[in-house]
Formats: sequence, C-alpha cells, structure tokens
Amino acid sequence: MNRTDLVGLIRKKKSFLCVGLDSDIHKLPKFLLDREDPVFEFNKAIIDATLPFAVAYKPNLAFYESRGIKGLLSLERTMNYLENFKSEAFTIADAKRGDIGNTSEQYARSVFVKSESGFEFDAITVAPYMGEDSVKPFLSFEDKWVILLALTSNKGAFDFQLIENKENEKRLFEEVLTKSSQWADESKLMYVVGATKAEMLSDIRKIVPNHFLLVPGVGAQGGSLQEVAKYGLTKECGLLVNASRSILFASNGEDFAEKAALEAKSMQLEMAEILTSL
Amino acid sequence: MNRTDLVGLIRKKKSFLCVGLDSDIHKLPKFLLDREDPVFEFNKAIIDATLPFAVAYKPNLAFYESRGIKGLLSLERTMNYLENFKSEAFTIADAKRGDIGNTSEQYARSVFVKSESGFEFDAITVAPYMGEDSVKPFLSFEDKWVILLALTSNKGAFDFQLIENKENEKRLFEEVLTKSSQWADESKLMYVVGATKAEMLSDIRKIVPNHFLLVPGVGAQGGSLQEVAKYGLTKECGLLVNASRSILFASNGEDFAEKAALEAKSMQLEMAEILTSL
Repeated sequence: MNRTDLVGLIRKKKSFLCVGLDSDIHKLPKFLLDREDPVFEFNKAIIDATLPFAVAYKPNLAFYESRGIKGLLSLERTMNYLENFKSEAFTIADAKRGDIGNTSEQYARSVFVKSESGFEFDAITVAPYMGEDSVKPFLSFEDKWVILLALTSNKGAFDFQLIENKENEKRLFEEVLTKSSQWADESKLMYVVGATKAEMLSDIRKIVPNHFLLVPGVGAQGGSLQEVAKYGLTKECGLLVNASRSILFASNGEDFAEKAALEAKSMQLEMAEILTSL
Repeated sequence: MNRTDLVGLIRKKKSFLCVGLDSDIHKLPKFLLDREDPVFEFNKAIIDATLPFAVAYKPNLAFYESRGIKGLLSLERTMNYLENFKSEAFTIADAKRGDIGNTSEQYARSVFVKSESGFEFDAITVAPYMGEDSVKPFLSFEDKWVILLALTSNKGAFDFQLIENKENEKRLFEEVLTKSSQWADESKLMYVVGATKAEMLSDIRKIVPNHFLLVPGVGAQGGSLQEVAKYGLTKECGLLVNASRSILFASNGEDFAEKAALEAKSMQLEMAEILTSL
C-alpha cells in the first residue's frame, strides 16, 4: 500500500488505529483452545470485529515464532485472511530485524515476497543499530515500507537512545532520524516512537515533519492518545497508533470479539474527533 | 552448554571456529536441488565434514525465514541433526532479536524452549538498541547465552556505534559493553565484535576482559584471524571466530563438503597454533 492510499484509508475510516496481533496462545479465551488453530480463529474474529475501526494490523512475530512451525502456520492463515481486505488494512510485520546487507535482504524477502516465503506484509519494523547497509535492503521493494525504531516505549529506551552525541549534541534517536531520513523519504519510511514519550514528539517532528510515526504504548503501557496527537499529528495525520493487549484481551470470555470491537470503536471515536481538527 | 564445557571443547578440538550456516538455497551445488530438502542435505554434509574442526554452528535465521515454513523445516531438521553432537558443538541462533520485555520473552522461547517451538539453541544474538528490559528476558534460561551486538563488521557500524557520549566520552559500543556487563556475567553473555575492526579489540578487552566474543568478518568480509587473536585472545581463549561463505561455498560442485572440510581444517590449524601460546 502506498502513502496516498494509506492517507485515503485514514480519511475514509476516520481512524489511525493499528491493532497489534500479539496473540499469546496462553491468553486466549479457553473455549477456543479445542479448535484446530486457536490463534488463527482468534485473529480472524478480532479482525472481523475491529476492521470498521482500524486501518492497520500488526502481527508481532515473536508470538508466532515462539510456537515454532505451528505458530508460523497461524500467521500464514492470518495473513491470507487479511489479504481479503487488502485495500482496507495496512499490514505490519513487527519483527525488529536488522543485520548485514546480504542477511537483511533475506529478512526482507521473508516478509515481502510471498512467492518465496508465503508472506506479504506492507511494512516491517527494523532496528537501526547496524546502520545504513542493514536497513537499505528492506527499502528496495515497491510500495513496501520500513518502520525504523527511533524512540521506543519501554524503560530500556533510556539506556542508549537518549545518549547525547559529543560532536553535535544530538541524542541517539535524533541521529537515527536525521541519518535515516536521507536513506529514504516519507513514501517508504516510518518511525517507531513510543506514546510513553509523547512530549518528545515535538522534537521528533522538527526532524521528520511529514513521516508517519507508528506509536505503540497507548493502552496497556499507559500512553495517552490526546498527548500523542497534540505533539505528533500532521496535516495528513502522520500517525498510526497501536493498541494490542487492551483490544485483544478486553474480555476473556465468549464475548471477546464483541468487547474488542467496543474498545477499538472507542479509540476510533476519539481519533475521529482528533482528525476533524485537520 | 555452560562456559566450562565450551572452554573444554575449544581445548579438546584446538579450535575456536564457528561455522555460519548461511545456507542460501540459490548458492547450493545444483545437484542437491532435486533432493526433498536440499538445504538440510547441504547442512548435514557441511556439519559432517567440519565437525572435527569446528566448536560451534551458527544458523543465520534470515536464510531459513526467507523460505517461509519450508525454510523453518530445514532449520528444524538441521537442529535435530546437531542434537546428535550436543557436547561437540555449541549452537547459536543468529537472529539479532530485541523488543519490549513480554515480546523478548517470546523470542527467547522460540529459540530456547524446544517443547514449545521445536528449537533449542545454546545462544541467540540480540540487538541492544531497546536496552536492558529488551535483553534480560533472554538471560533467564539455564545454561543459555545472549550474544549482544557491540561493534559489528559492516560499513553501517560507523553510522551509530561509534557516536561518542557527551557525558563520559564513551562510544556507543563501549556504553553497550559497560552497561550490559552489569546485566549478566561472562557465564551467560558474549558480544559480537567484527573482525574488520580488530584493532578496536584492545579497547573492548579493557571493558570486558573475560567475556567471549563472537567475531564475524573473517573470510568473505576480509578480517584477519591473526589480528583478531592478537588483540582479543584471553587465557581461556575467549573467542569464537565465525566463517560462513568461505567454508559453505568453497566449492560449487559435488566436492563441496570435502572443500569445506579443507577450508575449516586450514582455519583450525591456524587456531591450534594460536592456542598453543596460551
């Protein structure tokens, strides 16, 4: 999906909600566990319930890989199901990959080239530590996106991401934004910026005024949607706000999908309000 | 495998060679391609040929994931085969993972808990960008190791890893070494340090005098074994030097395994010489 289509989708649905499919099998409603593929059944129901309110889905690959080949089969079925809604949902492989060039090329194929890997996402999250040649191979696929880690939502973000460069007084995440924005423009590159650091979004917008930001940390991790919008919104929205656990596990019973829809709808209504200000 | 066993293995085989199983299906000898699982057949032959000369094997997960579920099956067969040589070979999942705590926990299970994922490696490579809580979940498995990226072998290493902290003049990779060495000791934690930066190994040894270093970049990437040993060797060796392409693809013909053995043997002989100096 290209940028024009993504912005159009956000306008149409009056939403910039991304649903994180962190579908931990140990947290699924018990009644699903006797199905052949409980995780796929769960994801399908969540997608059906939330599709009117969400513009993106973000399977977190760890929760599939931890179940080995069975988990990959659940992911494959989920992605095949999402293919039915290709123009209705942007898809993100939350994978945090990044390695030397010839290896990053292989990781890119694993999420972008369906004829080889069975998977085709619109985007992948990438870690910046290994620099330009570890990121660039992901950027050479048409209408596919890199979502690069900049400032993450967790406590450990303070360990390295805020280190100030002696040479220019830029913090590491600002260096990542500055350098990487020369590798690709806003049509192929987004950034991960945690909602728990909302006030830093204004610093970030000085460096990347137009890039989309994928913002995790609203919901279970405690970030505020209003704060994120206040500092991060652009005239084309420029935000994808992710919620995972607060939607997926809104209820533990047979009504899980219904409760997920209510939670997604409540976020979408707040987002619609925010978007009217554009 | 614990540290005592690893050091014992190095002494016994007079080798600190790690064979990187970057088994790109497009580079395999053509005659293997009509087998049911060419990548597994290739890996099995490489393992059989190099086992007398190598102490570790490092499948690069990207080269399996790029083939989707088929690729994971090749990896599963490879790891099941390596299980026959449990005390003869340390195994590393080269995965460069790292995410918020609950997600890193899932990635850890994907490589350490065979009953859930089908895979059990001795170690996994991890990227440090997200800090302490992204690394710690990998450290809570008995006799399992984290190999944390410090200074990598690629050109992009210069983009961020050498940034100097204004506060204490430490470079980013030195910050990673200093902080992370408080999260776990040398019995559970190793570091990736590229052979192409061998002269920096003496700076690294000032911070982590005893930790094992996994050193890629000898061979195809141009690093020198003698230089690496000169600056990085400790009294318990403290090095695992990886070679991938130079061994795997030493020949493209029916003699590929034989040529791989010769290449591995030649590295092992050089290593044996180096180890006699201990």
